[in-house]
Amino acid sequence: MPDETLILSSEIIVTMDEERRILRRGALAIAGDTILHVGSNDELQAAYPGAEHLDLGTRLIMPGLVNAHTHVPMALLRGLADDLRLDVWLLGYIMPVEREFVDEDFCYLGTQLACAEMIRGGITSFADMYYFEDIVAEATSSAGLRGVCGQTILKFPSPDAESYDDSLAAARQFIEKWKGHPLITPSIAPHAPYTCTPEILQACAELAVEFDIPVHIHIAETQSEVDDWRAQYGMPVVPWIKKLGLLEPKVIAAHCVHIDEGEMHTLEHAHAGVAHNPSSNLKLASGFAPVMEMLGIGLNVGIGTDGPASNNDLDMFEELRLASFIAKTVTNDPTTLPAQTVVEMATCMGAQAIHLGDVTGSLTAGKRADLIALDTAVTHNWPQFNRDASAVYSRIVYATKSSDVADVMVNGRWLMREKELLTLNEAEMLEKGAGYASRIDSFLIKREGSVLSKLIAIGEAEQEESYEIQIKLRLSESQPILERLGDGNFEILRKAHYREYDTYFSFPPPELARLRYREDEFIDEQGEVFNLRGRLTLTGPAAEREFENSVLLSRSRFIAPANFSVRFYREYFKPSDELVINKDRLRWLVRFNQVEFFINLDQILVPSLDGYFLELKSRTWSRKDADLKAQMIEDILAQLHIVKAEPVLEEYPEIVHAQLG
Amino acid sequence: MPDETLILSSEIIVTMDEERRILRRGALAIAGDTILHVGSNDELQAAYPGAEHLDLGTRLIMPGLVNAHTHVPMALLRGLADDLRLDVWLLGYIMPVEREFVDEDFCYLGTQLACAEMIRGGITSFADMYYFEDIVAEATSSAGLRGVCGQTILKFPSPDAESYDDSLAAARQFIEKWKGHPLITPSIAPHAPYTCTPEILQACAELAVEFDIPVHIHIAETQSEVDDWRAQYGMPVVPWIKKLGLLEPKVIAAHCVHIDEGEMHTLEHAHAGVAHNPSSNLKLASGFAPVMEMLGIGLNVGIGTDGPASNNDLDMFEELRLASFIAKTVTNDPTTLPAQTVVEMATCMGAQAIHLGDVTGSLTAGKRADLIALDTAVTHNWPQFNRDASAVYSRIVYATKSSDVADVMVNGRWLMREKELLTLNEAEMLEKGAGYASRIDSFLIKREGSVLSKLIAIGEAEQEESYEIQIKLRLSESQPILERLGDGNFEILRKAHYREYDTYFSFPPPELARLRYREDEFIDEQGEVFNLRGRLTLTGPAAEREFENSVLLSRSRFIAPANFSVRFYREYFKPSDELVINKDRLRWLVRFNQVEFFINLDQILVPSLDGYFLELKSRTWSRKDADLKAQMIEDILAQLHIVKAEPVLEEYPEIVHAQLG
Repeated sequence: MPDETLILSSEIIVTMDEERRILRRGALAIAGDTILHVGSNDELQAAYPGAEHLDLGTRLIMPGLVNAHTHVPMALLRGLADDLRLDVWLLGYIMPVEREFVDEDFCYLGTQLACAEMIRGGITSFADMYYFEDIVAEATSSAGLRGVCGQTILKFPSPDAESYDDSLAAARQFIEKWKGHPLITPSIAPHAPYTCTPEILQACAELAVEFDIPVHIHIAETQSEVDDWRAQYGMPVVPWIKKLGLLEPKVIAAHCVHIDEGEMHTLEHAHAGVAHNPSSNLKLASGFAPVMEMLGIGLNVGIGTDGPASNNDLDMFEELRLASFIAKTVTNDPTTLPAQTVVEMATCMGAQAIHLGDVTGSLTAGKRADLIALDTAVTHNWPQFNRDASAVYSRIVYATKSSDVADVMVNGRWLMREKELLTLNEAEMLEKGAGYASRIDSFLIKREGSVLSKLIAIGEAEQEESYEIQIKLRLSESQPILERLGDGNFEILRKAHYREYDTYFSFPPPELARLRYREDEFIDEQGEVFNLRGRLTLTGPAAEREFENSVLLSRSRFIAPANFSVRFYREYFKPSDELVINKDRLRWLVRFNQVEFFINLDQILVPSLDGYFLELKSRTWSRKDADLKAQMIEDILAQLHIVKAEPVLEEYPEIVHAQLG
Repeated sequence: MPDETLILSSEIIVTMDEERRILRRGALAIAGDTILHVGSNDELQAAYPGAEHLDLGTRLIMPGLVNAHTHVPMALLRGLADDLRLDVWLLGYIMPVEREFVDEDFCYLGTQLACAEMIRGGITSFADMYYFEDIVAEATSSAGLRGVCGQTILKFPSPDAESYDDSLAAARQFIEKWKGHPLITPSIAPHAPYTCTPEILQACAELAVEFDIPVHIHIAETQSEVDDWRAQYGMPVVPWIKKLGLLEPKVIAAHCVHIDEGEMHTLEHAHAGVAHNPSSNLKLASGFAPVMEMLGIGLNVGIGTDGPASNNDLDMFEELRLASFIAKTVTNDPTTLPAQTVVEMATCMGAQAIHLGDVTGSLTAGKRADLIALDTAVTHNWPQFNRDASAVYSRIVYATKSSDVADVMVNGRWLMREKELLTLNEAEMLEKGAGYASRIDSFLIKREGSVLSKLIAIGEAEQEESYEIQIKLRLSESQPILERLGDGNFEILRKAHYREYDTYFSFPPPELARLRYREDEFIDEQGEVFNLRGRLTLTGPAAEREFENSVLLSRSRFIAPANFSVRFYREYFKPSDELVINKDRLRWLVRFNQVEFFINLDQILVPSLDGYFLELKSRTWSRKDADLKAQMIEDILAQLHIVKAEPVLEEYPEIVHAQLG
């Protein structure tokens, strides 16, 4: 009976041990980091006469909660951008900001902020996945929390690695450094099947097996991920990662919203844990995870908050409630996922899901002392009925708030007493956090200040080298042009046929730019589509200079590949107006008197306009050159016998607007 | 400029006025119960030089939240019974407890407890529906909250009325008493179409029109309600109540989970408000209300907590978050129901939904001063991004907790300052509440102590008057019996043919009772079913006394009509075991030597057993009578030429168990 033994007692202890004992006037004997004994207060007082005794009165003592999936440093990005679709949120906001701001300092502060919130909310263990995970581990162990810290591996450059080789090498060092730490379990976190290559996943699996550490990965978060996998590999995600050996190590599979029964059996067979993230899946409209089916098959399903930038908090009590609510409504049965099962998912089963089941998740002799005490004499959780023993689970799940957590102990050390944090300085963190927010605001305000900078933020926009000189004419028929282009006076260097699907986004003043999203279908001689291309083009005001004869000098423009959908760009750029124009285009590159010109012969199909539009264009790089080419355009028109055509100064959007009235 | 004017300022004021102004360094001028002016702090300081000035620093000032649907006294029943289906919860637990405990004292204390929770959670107005609403109004106005208090009207007796006539008369008095009160709006609350008659709904509509007060009613909470209405009336619920004139007055329609587009238009045309209750609909698995469709049609949709016994709390911040989350996932679009719209639903639109839009719901000059101040410098809602003005709504919806509410003012009066309640004594309420919980626990423990008392709790079980004497025999064929019954020695008083579908529930020791749920199909001469009957029979241990020749004296039993489904009884009684037996029964009531006997000739169909069972039964009331009838049974058997039949001591469940091995 060592002197440093602590007897911790209270009115009610919910052990979550194998018998699910609920002790009235119970106590725990704790020595160092370990629970020695769980029993009645009287019994333990007698057994450990020299021990210090702390009675927590009416507070409810239970195991600390296990947050089975999160990205803690993202606390610093909380509320940065909301109510957006995943791609706009991630590619338009989060990743550009991460590229600019995420470094060691960011990760340390973000982890501290998250740890403070988690301690306040009764979380004692969590499974993380982010960059600079060594720093996350430092901040976590300094705060005193238990963490499974997963170093992210991606197939593209990330804030902490130029390439995945660097990233894997750093991960090995990270694992070697932390392996065996009393609080930190290092893990490797290939982000997701779609952001890794098969080689990366295999390398991660090998590393995890070599060190016997968990692999933490996002699996089947969205329906489209599964659809892509079926289309590309003829199978869903889980058998595919199994083939790569990724189920050999201990796996923490986050989300699993869209897995089928076979996949569940595969995961169960591999003793993988699943992290169910109710808020995140709802807020991002990912869907309803098949929680009842997974539990039915025997999978260990824990509950996670996901990152605080997509949730927007780290409140496990809210997640518990939601997990139960959602399961009930999806199964159309209010008896589904009763409170006790939910508490299991957040404690003992959650600990198993993140492969810490031997260490934490219940108040059992031999496990580490990871526990919390809840205020129960609170108005919003009153009165208390005791007829049915399971009512205590109901009070925990349906009416406890994270703000009811009064005391938190991890590994035998108090991290919070009487709602005072003991290992973290919140005021200092808030001040530093405000500095980040202010710098990130400035960065984004500058970027959002123009369509161009928003375009640059999401990809490689390149400025076209030169200005363009051009004329546009409206014709009633196309046949004469087609004939004269073939009469030998023009050297035809290239000819092409497209169908062009254009969406023009316009913006309110002072932004005078216009952004065109274009999908080109390349048509072959037989009229079949043989290629596709998507491009974004940002143009300034229509004309900067007008020559005689309606020849225009157009402003410089920026082009970028359009890698995403028109929907993405609409939600990202938030245009004030939008216009769709589809046209058929015949395009020639011709040489005329040693000079190259592009000739487009367009027919507007949507909205349907009569006649044809002929465009003559050439790049230019000086005023003198422009004057010369404006003159040559006159010659070409003469050559084409066009004399009475209607010259058009406007671009297509204006033409269409005028035509439609 | 009266001296009692208060200038209330802070870093950020979210007005929810028509322009949705968000003021930085703004202020409100408040005189008495009314907002005089909303503007910049500097401007208001200059305009009201003599006014008292209170600066709330970094706290966010916004309109108080509107809880559009609740049953506040039910705070005292919070957590009484959870994870149950609606009927088991309501008919098995809530209503029996209400019958026993709900009186004026209960309603006063329950309302106080709920008001304390609502003030702490930033709710300043609510629409209630319960019994003793006069008492609810008293407690609400004394706590200082604004309430639309709806006196419940039901077609059955309720805790505060013997009949609906009494209830309507009391409602008239209640309305006359409170009409014009600065905080209380009396309303009439016919509980739901299925718990009222058309006459009641018409009378409620007339009363509401006469006094120009709101009607508060549950509409289409479950799919089965709508199915019943379509089957019974050939239309869904809303057109049906419209035909009765119930949409003439101002209506607060709670739930509307299962209404179609036509019904939405009908409600909108009638300027009805809708109360959407996300937690309650999820927890009871009622379904997903078509919130986006209702908003699209222009309905005022507020958000409600529903009663704290089914939620289990009164936390509007949780409801805001859920309303948004659910809408996003149901529409498969994370941009659905963005944070600003949700805040509108909980403030200005919610006030319109409960027909208080002129008085509260926004910080607008001329409205009453109903406002709250939130702590914003909190770890779980940090940092704060200000690039996008709407980020403040996002912080309110996605990361604010009810525990962040620091100050609450209603009608110009502070109800909470610095998280201290000013109008309610929480310690006293908690103590009284514990007393109720303890008494309710005792009541239920006693009831739950036996299957009989549980049976009595849900309906009129009646004890059969006398013991029964009986014999059962197993026969290989039925034809000889049929012939001899017709040979003139028996006077046949009645003959019937049934198909009996029995479910036997058994219970673990010490409970030796068995409960039989029986559905009888009455079969006519043509073999067609012409009637149905459901009965529950509770029996004690099989035999109390055995006579010679295997005649048994069975114990007294209790019978009750089976008004609910077998599923209801299963979930309510929680049997440890269950057995289904279906049989075909021919039943005769015969007179033999002046004594009446029942003769049953049974064939067990499920599980299929060979042969037939003959039962002879007669009521008995004394040991002597029993001896006599035991002897007569021997005579009857002789008359029927039964000598070598196999006598059976067991009841059907034991026979089936033995047969099945």
